[in-house]
Amino acid sequence: MTAQRLGGSDLAARIRAHVAGRAAARRDDGRPARLVIVTATDDEASAWYVRSLAAAAGKAGIDCDVADLGPVATAGDLTARLTALSADPAVDGVMLQTPLPAGVTLAEVSGAIDPAKDVDGANPLSLGRLAVGRPAYAPATAAAVVALLDEYVVDLAGARAVVVGRSAVVGKPLAHLLLDRDATVTVCHSRTRDLAEVTSTADVLVAAVGRTHLITPTHVRAGAVVIDVGTNPTPDGGLAGDVDPAVAEVAAALTPVPGGVGPVTTALLLWHTVADSASAPGDSP
Amino acid sequence: MTAQRLGGSDLAARIRAHVAGRAAARRDDGRPARLVIVTATDDEASAWYVRSLAAAAGKAGIDCDVADLGPVATAGDLTARLTALSADPAVDGVMLQTPLPAGVTLAEVSGAIDPAKDVDGANPLSLGRLAVGRPAYAPATAAAVVALLDEYVVDLAGARAVVVGRSAVVGKPLAHLLLDRDATVTVCHSRTRDLAEVTSTADVLVAAVGRTHLITPTHVRAGAVVIDVGTNPTPDGGLAGDVDPAVAEVAAALTPVPGGVGPVTTALLLWHTVADSASAPGDSP
Repeated sequence: MTAQRLGGSDLAARIRAHVAGRAAARRDDGRPARLVIVTATDDEASAWYVRSLAAAAGKAGIDCDVADLGPVATAGDLTARLTALSADPAVDGVMLQTPLPAGVTLAEVSGAIDPAKDVDGANPLSLGRLAVGRPAYAPATAAAVVALLDEYVVDLAGARAVVVGRSAVVGKPLAHLLLDRDATVTVCHSRTRDLAEVTSTADVLVAAVGRTHLITPTHVRAGAVVIDVGTNPTPDGGLAGDVDPAVAEVAAALTPVPGGVGPVTTALLLWHTVADSASAPGDSP
Repeated sequence: MTAQRLGGSDLAARIRAHVAGRAAARRDDGRPARLVIVTATDDEASAWYVRSLAAAAGKAGIDCDVADLGPVATAGDLTARLTALSADPAVDGVMLQTPLPAGVTLAEVSGAIDPAKDVDGANPLSLGRLAVGRPAYAPATAAAVVALLDEYVVDLAGARAVVVGRSAVVGKPLAHLLLDRDATVTVCHSRTRDLAEVTSTADVLVAAVGRTHLITPTHVRAGAVVIDVGTNPTPDGGLAGDVDPAVAEVAAALTPVPGGVGPVTTALLLWHTVADSASAPGDSP
């Protein structure tokens, strides 16, 4: 058995086309859509990601600025900038790129991002609203996982979903999104005992832990759908997922890395920038 | 085997004594502690609960007002009152009692409660902060479950915890509190398939679903710790839990209903009213 490949490129292209239509209409209206990415790091991988995101925004017709506060920015500097951007009527989306300077946490400063512009769902208020079913942008990666499951018509109601990783940007919001879709949801992490025993109960297994090939065939029930959120750098300059490729011999379906969750994440960040409002009914890409 | 009885009365009494000390000091300072409970219902059970809470507050030396907006209050009425109370420097705690008028949801109006006064953790921002490890009041019931587990020295790190119920006031915040204590957490609900199969994996099982005696011995692993959050009215005017008393023959430990989670919940609501701030280090009852 070889798992179906759950590629994200086609879905991402459709979302981007939808975004481009919105962005063109906005430009015709004299109100071009604008995304501002705030950075405060000299991390190379981060810079590469920000450039690729800015390029994707540009291609879709979204003006994208990078506001670099440098690696010595304080929490106060970041909060002030995020507050100003949130108040700026010419700005539609505000994203705070990690890593942040030593001693500054995302949870601490992201509360300054207006939830209506919080395109990567970083503000704890966005997460709280998500959890209670109020309109909010989910972190783009978490939203991308559910979008991919929908793309391939994976039935979540009543399914057992296991998320490996409890981060505020993927694991926790994803747990709420999956609960909202009526899955029975388990969150595992580094302190989980007998990880393979827990993960092998999953109909839908999501690896979002940031450890290359942590999930092996022994972690996966035959016939499970496996979503790989990992993007771990390899020595040769490539990317490896959290899921061992040998899992394809056991799973029914598996997302590739790269080319799975990643492109959908980028497309959804852009979508959140041009969407009328968070989770507005009838307003999906 | 008969399960250890995890009563909450002693813990609740200790918390109330701690609250009374704080409240007395505040009164000596000329700044008496004040809790305001906002109601908008003529539900009898709700009125009974509010009276008992107000009585407990009074006994602990906390001034407690009930602001009854009546069953025809609109979301706007409620939001305006909660905003005003949040801005009133004489008010320490604001609680919005459910049920609410038809068409008004707790999530919709509770965003108007200042998180610093949100003693029952109703504001989605409180839940979001809780999820990302920022200071916030948890809903008192969810906090009471963890306080009881601590009281009886139940080791949560690495334990498998299963929460039955996904409400915004118990199941979801409790999942975050248990994750924060390094448990592996599963949330079940009405759409969960094979509930007994999932719940019987639990080292710690929490029933918070509001269905009398839903959890039977077949749902429980021998030796599990079982926490019963249910308070279901019985025909004879009493209270029944979500857990069948026969579970005591299987579990290692079980909370009684009444006399388990309930008194601790009330005591923690009062504690939140006099605490210096949400989850302040070193400031616990």
